[in-house]
Amino acid sequence: MLLCDIGNTSYHFLDDTKEYKEDAKNFDPATIKEKVFYICVNPQAKSLLQNLVNWIDIAAFIDKTPYYTTMGIDRIVACEYIQEGIVLDAGSAITVDLVKEGVFQGGFIYPGIRAMQACYTNISSALAYPFNFELDLGKMPKNSTDAISYGYIKTLKGEVDALAHEVYLTGGDARKFAKIFPNAVVDERLLFKSMQKIIKKAKLC
Amino acid sequence: MLLCDIGNTSYHFLDDTKEYKEDAKNFDPATIKEKVFYICVNPQAKSLLQNLVNWIDIAAFIDKTPYYTTMGIDRIVACEYIQEGIVLDAGSAITVDLVKEGVFQGGFIYPGIRAMQACYTNISSALAYPFNFELDLGKMPKNSTDAISYGYIKTLKGEVDALAHEVYLTGGDARKFAKIFPNAVVDERLLFKSMQKIIKKAKLC
Repeated sequence: MLLCDIGNTSYHFLDDTKEYKEDAKNFDPATIKEKVFYICVNPQAKSLLQNLVNWIDIAAFIDKTPYYTTMGIDRIVACEYIQEGIVLDAGSAITVDLVKEGVFQGGFIYPGIRAMQACYTNISSALAYPFNFELDLGKMPKNSTDAISYGYIKTLKGEVDALAHEVYLTGGDARKFAKIFPNAVVDERLLFKSMQKIIKKAKLC
Repeated sequence: MLLCDIGNTSYHFLDDTKEYKEDAKNFDPATIKEKVFYICVNPQAKSLLQNLVNWIDIAAFIDKTPYYTTMGIDRIVACEYIQEGIVLDAGSAITVDLVKEGVFQGGFIYPGIRAMQACYTNISSALAYPFNFELDLGKMPKNSTDAISYGYIKTLKGEVDALAHEVYLTGGDARKFAKIFPNAVVDERLLFKSMQKIIKKAKLC
């Protein structure tokens, strides 16, 4: 079974057990002839996929009542997978969603590492430092690298910790954030696993 | 007395009691012939000011021992003004600095409103919403505007609140953040007041 999670920057495939990515800007989905089950948050990709009959959008097979209209399908699929906890999906954006007793409680969106790095750099060349994921979050910073790293990482961590639920880390930067959330469950294939569960439930395959 | 606080986007003047701003990209400081006491974090402006004898950099008259080398002079000047508390300076960047018993304890840097707005928009056109400063921070968002607003505002508020000190709000966006920190002291002229104090102490005028 070929699965694809299409984000803002890439087509992320899972072919049985093999994962690979294609750049969203250059990839032509018409080059794939076999059946693909996909989810997509990328408006450009959506229009390319519209007329390809072998690409099956699994969004149609999810009850979206508990969610909100403009919520990204990747977040919905992630929430569908857990019964209780927080899904932190660290991609080009970071989404943090809370699920209690199988019901979505709400969530927020924070910039991903690359976007936030560019954000600081755009403010001033004096802030063009890479983030330090090893910094001591227990004390206020006294150097520039840690001042922006703390601004990015500690504020997020504080909010996630305050939600007081088990954290499931997924997305391309999951392992970086695992340093910040040492008790989190890291599952880079959480979305694919959830897609498989939805496909099975809907008897699509 | 003419004072000037030069940031990344503008020259911010205080002429006795009258404030005005000039765009940092287009303004030529050589057009001013009277004496100006200034602070500057803008590298381009710094090189323009180097040979202008009527522009007096007050940075030289501050004991910078408690601070760190690459710390912006605007943050140092702000910290010099208070004995105890947090200075939150909301400009193109937001700086949050903690002072205890007159001594700087450290601080962090967070993107300003405009920079963070652009950051979300650059991730995806689906995140191009203005921030809602009226949102209910007590519950997890269930719409896109609040999801990014919460991501930007609540994470910052949580961290500032956790520092458990009186908050002094300054900078161009101080009034917007006053909605988020209702108990804060709003003082848009905090930097100028601190500059006046430093000038007086150093007997420059």
